[in-house]
Amino acid sequence: MAMPKGPQAFPRTEYLRRLSAVKAEMKRQEIEVLIVTVSSNITYLSGYTARSGYVPQGLIVCLKDEEPCFIVRRCDAPSAKYEMFIDNSRIIGYPESLVGNREMDGFDAVSDFLRDNGLASTGVGLEMKFLPHRSIGKFKAKMPQATLVDFTDCVTWLRLIKSDLEIAIMKEAAAIADAGILRAKEVIRPGVREADAAAEIIATLVRGVNGKPGTDVSDFHLCASPLAATPHTRWSEDVLHQGSQVNFEFGAVRYGYVSALSRTFMIGKPSERLRRVHEGEVAGMEAALAVVRPGITCGDIATAFNSTIKKYGFEKETRCGYSIGIDWLEPTASIKESDRTVLQPNMTFHLLLNNWIDEDFGYALSETFRVTETGAEVFTTLPREIFVM
Amino acid sequence: MAMPKGPQAFPRTEYLRRLSAVKAEMKRQEIEVLIVTVSSNITYLSGYTARSGYVPQGLIVCLKDEEPCFIVRRCDAPSAKYEMFIDNSRIIGYPESLVGNREMDGFDAVSDFLRDNGLASTGVGLEMKFLPHRSIGKFKAKMPQATLVDFTDCVTWLRLIKSDLEIAIMKEAAAIADAGILRAKEVIRPGVREADAAAEIIATLVRGVNGKPGTDVSDFHLCASPLAATPHTRWSEDVLHQGSQVNFEFGAVRYGYVSALSRTFMIGKPSERLRRVHEGEVAGMEAALAVVRPGITCGDIATAFNSTIKKYGFEKETRCGYSIGIDWLEPTASIKESDRTVLQPNMTFHLLLNNWIDEDFGYALSETFRVTETGAEVFTTLPREIFVM
Repeated sequence: MAMPKGPQAFPRTEYLRRLSAVKAEMKRQEIEVLIVTVSSNITYLSGYTARSGYVPQGLIVCLKDEEPCFIVRRCDAPSAKYEMFIDNSRIIGYPESLVGNREMDGFDAVSDFLRDNGLASTGVGLEMKFLPHRSIGKFKAKMPQATLVDFTDCVTWLRLIKSDLEIAIMKEAAAIADAGILRAKEVIRPGVREADAAAEIIATLVRGVNGKPGTDVSDFHLCASPLAATPHTRWSEDVLHQGSQVNFEFGAVRYGYVSALSRTFMIGKPSERLRRVHEGEVAGMEAALAVVRPGITCGDIATAFNSTIKKYGFEKETRCGYSIGIDWLEPTASIKESDRTVLQPNMTFHLLLNNWIDEDFGYALSETFRVTETGAEVFTTLPREIFVM
Repeated sequence: MAMPKGPQAFPRTEYLRRLSAVKAEMKRQEIEVLIVTVSSNITYLSGYTARSGYVPQGLIVCLKDEEPCFIVRRCDAPSAKYEMFIDNSRIIGYPESLVGNREMDGFDAVSDFLRDNGLASTGVGLEMKFLPHRSIGKFKAKMPQATLVDFTDCVTWLRLIKSDLEIAIMKEAAAIADAGILRAKEVIRPGVREADAAAEIIATLVRGVNGKPGTDVSDFHLCASPLAATPHTRWSEDVLHQGSQVNFEFGAVRYGYVSALSRTFMIGKPSERLRRVHEGEVAGMEAALAVVRPGITCGDIATAFNSTIKKYGFEKETRCGYSIGIDWLEPTASIKESDRTVLQPNMTFHLLLNNWIDEDFGYALSETFRVTETGAEVFTTLPREIFVM
């Protein structure tokens, strides 16, 4: 039985539109063929979300072909056929002899494919920035006639402006993230182990809402006293108690797209300092969102936030956010004062105002939003408050 | 208030033992200083498990110093102080200006640290294999007097043989993985959405057992018909039904260490083909474990399995497993016929016999085990059966 196509996150026209934009840039840079190796870029151009990217794989975009080809480890080809919009004949499994082999790997299959298809002596785009040193060396050695061009930024930057279809999916994810915080309101209690609270909230993020489940587990952080000023721990083995502050930052996922959300919880009365910071942060959030409109820069958002909290007597060292989409953070636009990226409609950002002020004092407040024709549309429906238990 | 040390996964002596082994290899290769950048190697040498490695960071091991230093993004320094065994003064936060910056990043802070400490004109070990091309270029450009040596394999291969303390932690993780399969026995039913089943099992993996929670969420795969022959999808949005086969592969985590486990579930009567493959796979598992003892090779284990299933009339294309430990797969020894790694006591492997035979027919059976003085000790307590619902 041939593998059926699974439910597709997007219609074929959406993928062809994305590919057209990539091909326009390929033409401009005189590239005949592009090897896409960044997992989130492969998702963007094909719908593939299976977690096979820990071994080499490559989506091959040719100027002359409407659909790309995918060179992937053979055991992962069935999931590619199920998930990708392209014809099953264009998914090519490479043999297992290239896995766990110190001399050869899947990139040998990719370069062999280019050579066998007469594509190895043209302009070849490669996403070099995140590629291991020796993989680039391999492509150079196996395709000496090719002109290799670093194409890292092309697909990654194209992802910056979402289509309405992508926005709809990110809103589905945002509704799930909201449900996660609402579940936290039920389970954050003195005497509860952090892990037990995390288990309940993560389960909610997987079950989803409105008949739409989460399609993956994303990054999840439950940072409770004394770790309330750390951003990247998961949870500890401790039991929550009266006086515990709990900072959440997590994402919910639909078809690879993440909406992220952060909120601060307090078991017991918030300290005067926490209240003051909260007041400043909420004012900063409002000020930041108020300046958002097409034509201003990411830097302008950061300036609005930073100048607001300064009036409340504190600062924030880390940046105020970044472009968000497939697999959470997109390594393109940053919400920081020096970033000159000009906002356009349907850019989406994680406005991450979490503030790790002292080693033992931090605060969490973040929201995912899109730039509209006239302002900002925030995806969460939750209030901006310290959730006091 | 200074950040307290959190509960340590291992005593200081354990980390110093690991560091001694690294330093012996540094001496052999005439390296004064080693920059450890692979996240799992940083965990191994320090206890750090926070998920900050998506921006550059480096653990600096100097021959002349007992403890390493850690150069990390400033907001992550508190979690490093909490988790790492080293003195808090040896954890150095780099400024936020190096994040989301197209010209500079945390590796600039690492090379500046080496230069400022007179270490930039000596032999410098670097884990080059998985490092992006341009990061290696940066180290070369910023430390022109240094002799850079690729040290990727040193720490990674040292992890191959576990201490008794590591084995104890992996057994704690294995008990949690067992609980995950037992939870699956309760929730895999016709009419249940795959996502709802996944939510219950993942929550179990977080809650843990015996008072010991999971400390992270690891890879999780619920691959149900028609995806029962795919290894790396998460779960689909479908509802399970009479005739659904469900293949699980997931891991449970304690302090970064993963024990992995796979089992096959069937809603309704297994087909004759599935029964026959199951019989062969179980016989293969027994044959593989029966040959394990110090002195034989990884290849011998694979041969025992492959020759057994051949008698049952089928084969397996993918390798039969790999070394397992921190962050699941260790990129060192493979259980495949060509691998000549000689077994030694306390090596740990994921004997992964999952077999994706046809596009629409697969089977899951795997176990994590350690090599003992005389044989194999399997970590799971679960039977090797098709769980029929």
